Amino acid sequence: MNNIEIIKSLDNKKVKKYTKLLQKKYREEEKKFIVVGDHLVSEAYKTNNLLEVIKTEDNNICFDVPTTYVTYDIIKKISGMSNPQSIIGICRMITPSNIGEKVLMLDDIQDPGNLGTIIRSAVAFNIDTIVVSEHTVDLYNDKVVRASEGMLFNINIVKKNLISYIEELRTNNYKIFGTNVNGGKLVDNLELPNKYVIIIGNEGSGVKEEILSKCDEYFYVPMSSKCESLNVGVATSIILYELDKNN
Amino acid sequence: MNNIEIIKSLDNKKVKKYTKLLQKKYREEEKKFIVVGDHLVSEAYKTNNLLEVIKTEDNNICFDVPTTYVTYDIIKKISGMSNPQSIIGICRMITPSNIGEKVLMLDDIQDPGNLGTIIRSAVAFNIDTIVVSEHTVDLYNDKVVRASEGMLFNINIVKKNLISYIEELRTNNYKIFGTNVNGGKLVDNLELPNKYVIIIGNEGSGVKEEILSKCDEYFYVPMSSKCESLNVGVATSIILYELDKNN
Repeated sequence: MNNIEIIKSLDNKKVKKYTKLLQKKYREEEKKFIVVGDHLVSEAYKTNNLLEVIKTEDNNICFDVPTTYVTYDIIKKISGMSNPQSIIGICRMITPSNIGEKVLMLDDIQDPGNLGTIIRSAVAFNIDTIVVSEHTVDLYNDKVVRASEGMLFNINIVKKNLISYIEELRTNNYKIFGTNVNGGKLVDNLELPNKYVIIIGNEGSGVKEEILSKCDEYFYVPMSSKCESLNVGVATSIILYELDKNN
Repeated sequence: MNNIEIIKSLDNKKVKKYTKLLQKKYREEEKKFIVVGDHLVSEAYKTNNLLEVIKTEDNNICFDVPTTYVTYDIIKKISGMSNPQSIIGICRMITPSNIGEKVLMLDDIQDPGNLGTIIRSAVAFNIDTIVVSEHTVDLYNDKVVRASEGMLFNINIVKKNLISYIEELRTNNYKIFGTNVNGGKLVDNLELPNKYVIIIGNEGSGVKEEILSKCDEYFYVPMSSKCESLNVGVATSIILYELDKNN
């Protein structure tokens, strides 16, 4: 590869445009977001979501998409990271598809690491669709993407008003299950119908009362009284593991 | 509370001394570490690990330990956080106690959030002792403490050379179980003896070969082939949940 053009100026117009994708507002305008590193770029490519690549000259992985060569300082700027891998993918936002039968609903998860972890575990344990509430942390936040290990490309994710959507799903014969520390069945005693929704609440406050009151059944994860609660990513993963194993 | 003395200078000697506790080296010299926020300070107090409190005048929670009043800017400085709660606890490092029968061993966990999550789940699922390898991230790192939700005060944690300690435990009739994606039993088919060790590996590379070769039995968490692996905090939590439930 001789004579490739390498962008070196941090003030280059293209660089400035890419860097804006760190902002949610601009991501939504462009319907694009970035991923950083070989693994995530590969996941985007495999699932046909990779539009462009930005990388340094010494990165050897090639993808069949338009590629821009830049310095490592520019990679740092666009990624917003202090120590990134030397490749960035510009990806299209994921197109929602059919809802499927196994639905996970997230009521205002706030921490990007938790949302990413939940996405990763939802793929691991065969959930069809994740429904996120309107106030859930942005799916395309770089920390969400990273914590998901690219699994956000492998699952259907939709954003909805949970209250009205629960009613819609109920009309379509989905059974609605809510997590509730104050009662209900042990998670390993749950019997799931074909079509179901599992609702998980916010880190601090759990599932909102007005949503909880719409559930058909409640369940919880048993644990020692020495521990008040589990991390929400962990609790959700245990629930999905248990339900996948038993059903 | 009239006429309490409030430290206002960021250059105050006491403030400088406390701020040093953000550094591992200084924590180890002093055998102290800090926790931030009502919940963590309460956990430290309940378990008799709280030595001192530093708080703003308008924080209303009182503990029966020496208390220093400071400005919110000083709280920010000592905590190293941009938006902390208004109370900091200075805690004694945890004194190791007897090993117990249910042992979790961590081989070089690097991410502080993962270590904290694992500690929290270990308490939830009745592990007696966590053994961390010498290259595991520092237990008293503020992100570990926060992610543990204070549960590090509720469990015995010791640092050891894993290879020699596994031999010592085996001599004492512990059975050694290793996680291995390439084979072994399903985690829910494991039969545990009274005394056992569960070994969990590093985020990127798993359990080191020389440690894995010392295990008596191997097991894994089943999951979809669409997902390469689980987050290590999640995987560990699922394992501990399953073992606690079945034994």
